[in-house]
Amino acid sequence: MVTKVVDLRSDTVTKPTETMRAAMASADVDDDVLGSDPTAYRFEVEMARIMGKEAALFVPSGTMGNLISVLVHCEVRGSEVILGDNSHIHIYENGGISTIGGVHSRTVKNNMDGTMDIALIEAAIRDPEGELYYPTTRLICLENTHANCGGRCISVEYTDRVGELAKNHGLKLHIDGARIFNASIALGVPVHRLVQAADSVSVCLSKGLGAPIGSVIVGSKSFIAKAKRLRKTLGGGMRQVGILCAAAYVALQENVGKLEGDHKKAKILADGLNQIKGLRVDTASVETNMVFFDILEPGNITVEKLTKVLEERGILVMPVSSSSIRVVLHHQISGSDVLYALSCIKQAVLGLPVENGDK
Amino acid sequence: MVTKVVDLRSDTVTKPTETMRAAMASADVDDDVLGSDPTAYRFEVEMARIMGKEAALFVPSGTMGNLISVLVHCEVRGSEVILGDNSHIHIYENGGISTIGGVHSRTVKNNMDGTMDIALIEAAIRDPEGELYYPTTRLICLENTHANCGGRCISVEYTDRVGELAKNHGLKLHIDGARIFNASIALGVPVHRLVQAADSVSVCLSKGLGAPIGSVIVGSKSFIAKAKRLRKTLGGGMRQVGILCAAAYVALQENVGKLEGDHKKAKILADGLNQIKGLRVDTASVETNMVFFDILEPGNITVEKLTKVLEERGILVMPVSSSSIRVVLHHQISGSDVLYALSCIKQAVLGLPVENGDK
Amino acid sequence: MVTKVVDLRSDTVTKPTETMRAAMASADVDDDVLGSDPTAYRFEVEMARIMGKEAALFVPSGTMGNLISVLVHCEVRGSEVILGDNSHIHIYENGGISTIGGVHSRTVKNNMDGTMDIALIEAAIRDPEGELYYPTTRLICLENTHANCGGRCISVEYTDRVGELAKNHGLKLHIDGARIFNASIALGVPVHRLVQAADSVSVCLSKGLGAPIGSVIVGSKSFIAKAKRLRKTLGGGMRQVGILCAAAYVALQENVGKLEGDHKKAKILADGLNQIKGLRVDTASVETNMVFFDILEPGNITVEKLTKVLEERGILVMPVSSSSIRVVLHHQISGSDVLYALSCIKQAVLGLPVENGDK
Amino acid sequence: MVTKVVDLRSDTVTKPTETMRAAMASADVDDDVLGSDPTAYRFEVEMARIMGKEAALFVPSGTMGNLISVLVHCEVRGSEVILGDNSHIHIYENGGISTIGGVHSRTVKNNMDGTMDIALIEAAIRDPEGELYYPTTRLICLENTHANCGGRCISVEYTDRVGELAKNHGLKLHIDGARIFNASIALGVPVHRLVQAADSVSVCLSKGLGAPIGSVIVGSKSFIAKAKRLRKTLGGGMRQVGILCAAAYVALQENVGKLEGDHKKAKILADGLNQIKGLRVDTASVETNMVFFDILEPGNITVEKLTKVLEERGILVMPVSSSSIRVVLHHQISGSDVLYALSCIKQAVLGLPVENGDK
Repeated sequence: MVTKVVDLRSDTVTKPTETMRAAMASADVDDDVLGSDPTAYRFEVEMARIMGKEAALFVPSGTMGNLISVLVHCEVRGSEVILGDNSHIHIYENGGISTIGGVHSRTVKNNMDGTMDIALIEAAIRDPEGELYYPTTRLICLENTHANCGGRCISVEYTDRVGELAKNHGLKLHIDGARIFNASIALGVPVHRLVQAADSVSVCLSKGLGAPIGSVIVGSKSFIAKAKRLRKTLGGGMRQVGILCAAAYVALQENVGKLEGDHKKAKILADGLNQIKGLRVDTASVETNMVFFDILEPGNITVEKLTKVLEERGILVMPVSSSSIRVVLHHQISGSDVLYALSCIKQAVLGLPVENGDK
Repeated sequence: MVTKVVDLRSDTVTKPTETMRAAMASADVDDDVLGSDPTAYRFEVEMARIMGKEAALFVPSGTMGNLISVLVHCEVRGSEVILGDNSHIHIYENGGISTIGGVHSRTVKNNMDGTMDIALIEAAIRDPEGELYYPTTRLICLENTHANCGGRCISVEYTDRVGELAKNHGLKLHIDGARIFNASIALGVPVHRLVQAADSVSVCLSKGLGAPIGSVIVGSKSFIAKAKRLRKTLGGGMRQVGILCAAAYVALQENVGKLEGDHKKAKILADGLNQIKGLRVDTASVETNMVFFDILEPGNITVEKLTKVLEERGILVMPVSSSSIRVVLHHQISGSDVLYALSCIKQAVLGLPVENGDK
Repeated sequence: MVTKVVDLRSDTVTKPTETMRAAMASADVDDDVLGSDPTAYRFEVEMARIMGKEAALFVPSGTMGNLISVLVHCEVRGSEVILGDNSHIHIYENGGISTIGGVHSRTVKNNMDGTMDIALIEAAIRDPEGELYYPTTRLICLENTHANCGGRCISVEYTDRVGELAKNHGLKLHIDGARIFNASIALGVPVHRLVQAADSVSVCLSKGLGAPIGSVIVGSKSFIAKAKRLRKTLGGGMRQVGILCAAAYVALQENVGKLEGDHKKAKILADGLNQIKGLRVDTASVETNMVFFDILEPGNITVEKLTKVLEERGILVMPVSSSSIRVVLHHQISGSDVLYALSCIKQAVLGLPVENGDK
Repeated sequence: MVTKVVDLRSDTVTKPTETMRAAMASADVDDDVLGSDPTAYRFEVEMARIMGKEAALFVPSGTMGNLISVLVHCEVRGSEVILGDNSHIHIYENGGISTIGGVHSRTVKNNMDGTMDIALIEAAIRDPEGELYYPTTRLICLENTHANCGGRCISVEYTDRVGELAKNHGLKLHIDGARIFNASIALGVPVHRLVQAADSVSVCLSKGLGAPIGSVIVGSKSFIAKAKRLRKTLGGGMRQVGILCAAAYVALQENVGKLEGDHKKAKILADGLNQIKGLRVDTASVETNMVFFDILEPGNITVEKLTKVLEERGILVMPVSSSSIRVVLHHQISGSDVLYALSCIKQAVLGLPVENGDK
């Protein structure tokens, strides 16, 4: 009988804490579309301060945060964005920047560490002399940490260089910072410094930070003014949104500090997995809260089988290819959960019988 | 010193009740994007049942509900929608169906009661023989109650006739039912019957129903499946959305019944305003919770002046033209609030001195 | 046996004259996409001069001319255009400004004479204070002559007033001048004066002017630079387009002067039709080359029947409703063609036998 | 004094021949938008027959042909196309499929020979199970010959395999066949066989085939019906287009046979360039009418300098990078033009004085 679920599929599964629930229950709210919600206001001011930008805007999701950001920077018809071929915006957001926003995508190969070669970015910038044939490059997007590249961090030096390249070509720089606090903690760089070169950043509150709903975008006042209008167009303007901002505020106060623990648990899990015969983890690439492991001999146990066996033990993981599985740590996974997961995975891979009530 | 605010600008200003806050604080939630949130599931099933449709989907706002609905029905490039020239979708939603969705708008004149002449709707349907020059008509939109037409109700007979017209021409019918429960109550018709002819309906939970955030759209299973995907594209997919659905569920249970009281208060207010010399209300048109009144001789007191004077007394109203003001009733406006508002308006219009501490 | 076709459906049916064919056969051409075609260059310079604008651009059709113009003026996402509810752009161009360009349409009622009440236009301009809910008004469109309003002319005074209104609100003015030369001739106003208030004009060369293919748009240099790029995007950039510009140049030289004759023939036809018992023409509204006539008692002869009977006599007309037919005059309809058409129509309406070989 | 221009920039610079001019001057034409032009009809029927498809449609340019084709196959919002990262559609058509059509681009690396690895194409097809996050793959595009890959030919075997892959996944296959006749000639495969697996093909008439204006798209009857409507939306519907179709018809009759000579001249030029010290041509890749050559030591002579020196001698070439130049052969470049060009390039590269009147 499974008595507990250890949900390692994503840090989006984090549930609101008691403090958050209490904050939501007592939040002072009003109609935010009419600009009157005090809790939303307080949260956005604080978020802008933390991120070192002029202004901030709460949005229902990271997808909307990225969509709005790209569309504001590319508000003129005929725009092109340069982004990683493995980036979340390109792969997992329904192609919305094109299908909804009419922005043309020019991809550059993502390296294993989530960066793109700066020379390749520069080569992808359109020459204005060819503008009769070319869309106009208006934006470069980075992602930090980079989800599809193992949750690895983009350094402040790299970010600054891309920012300089953008500035030199009259382009904007957007950072999909869904997990930017993880990068900040892992790199030991204040988050505002890490995104200093960016014209806009989207930050997710409902992943490792554990808020139930929402992301926030930050940028200049004029950027946020345009973003606010576009949020209304997309249907992301919400009424007594202070309810959600109250939880997000708690997430900022209480959960940023927990990310370091998530990273430690990820390293422990990665090391443990790497010691299981038949599995492999590139432990050096485990920089934050994500661990990707490969099954070396799928003949032994397949990804599907392992996922299923683990599910029976209450452990949820996310298959990402026919030989690879993703697990994500977060503050609602304890150290003993990690050890339990390791033990179950080992048993399954080694083909040992799984004993009920083992935990 | 103003000790209380009587906010009559809109029923969107309703704040969550204690019951709602308690429901949010204790809601059983999970990641709804991954399809696991039990409270969201329960709410959507209940909403579909109430509306008499196969399925339902929670969305962050009525604007997104309408946008998704129009875009799902008009998923093929080159579509045209027929809608009222005074409808909320046409006037107040940023033109999103065109600017984001590329759907062409063909407007038909809204009558004073919110309907459009059926002959005019039929005449606006494009002849498929002219398709080389014409976009393809794919959708008709109604709005019930009709906000810009005084909150008046569209009858079930009219709705059925438009539904039949749509069906005969192979078109879909969408109802912007932001305040459809007000119409249902005022007409004495079960809400599922009122929208029976519609292929989709958007219903607002954060207006008179008083939930803090959200709308819901209902329709067939295949409609909702497409809507869900489009919600993700727009960035309306939210994680532990059960928090919000818990409040919405309370709204359904506790506040639908309060709408009748709102309508009564609206009539009392309308009658009272009509008795103030210098003001005029078309009382016959006050069918639900909205009252529009005209200042007959703006030379006496202007809309701006009246709005300002009332604000000083803690009464918030919404100017809608240079001679006209809108007030909206909701369950957080008491009978004494109505009398207080009437008294203040009378004093202001008659030019009597406003005594502090009057209330 | 029909020995001659009198094609009155439209002035788009005009065929290239011998002079035009000779010009096409001997045109000095090169690759216009590479900017090297001397004949295209010469034509565009001449067209800009005639229209009194800085620059001109040849495009494959009037639809593309209007589409490009609207999209250049509305290059920023979230734009709205104010245009007549009976305008060609709104009714007959596939809704392309929305379905391809994402521009939201706000229509104003067209009066019988093709104008829109200026107060209504002004009322339709969006208040920037409501920009959270509203698209941004960026453009007003006029149509001169107005095809769906009987080919009537818009006066220079009216155009100037709309231009001033646009300027006062920071908007642009585009004129769909498919038949602007007809208006210029009929009003006795130089064409450049007639469009002086406009930021852009599209002019058709393949209607009354008789060129086989093409329209031209005129405006400022920066407008045309953007238009040129958008023409490429749409696929309207053509290679040795001097072939077509050579014919268009002849049209300007030889055929503008013939329009006056077309108008006279239209009046003769209108007067003649009006004298046929059972038909009615509002002769006062016949200002240019279009005549619309109504069948007063469709019980006598229907539009379909009359169209068919005339077709058997080689006379092609265009039914526009169940009681109304459009005929358009052009330089390839002779005076005797007009008399022949009148005679045939009279015979048909009166139910007289149609004698073969009558002509 | 330059007495002759040898224009090697592109085969788009070909000018209409005397036969074409005569055909245009005598073409039997009518209003093609009304469906009445006999010459356009005859041309489209012939083109469909040659290409082995049900129907054909004349369009003003190859860009419009590709744009229409992609948009017809991707008519439902939320579509994604798989195409080469070096393809003409992706690089040189203003990103129109996104900026005008809202289609999301997913690029796959183009190999040197213009193909894409089939495994990579397959990997790029979206899994329908992830459709909540993914756009829907609806189309694969090939380009044959591939301009940015040296004008190399895509084989019938490869095309068939991609066609099968597309069919297996319910996708469509479009071929940008701007120079498909060059491929057909070079491969010795009938053109209809070469495109047998494709659902649509765009073919350029104004490149090597030498017509002054136009492309044609071919496909099923239902594809062409939709294409015709979209052509009107984009403004590509033209009136007496038989003028242009007459020239295109001559191009088909007279110029397809000349392509083989262009290929021979290209080989001669390539071999000659390769023998010039300081230049390099990958002669094996010269399969059709394009030659790309590199300057090995730009310190000696730069691309800019060489281009300029050649221009003074009447030879026009197209720089494509800081070390590389493109030359394109066509039927208006004679054998002696090739020798003259070789001689001038040799003199320039070797730094010999250029004698005036050398030719």
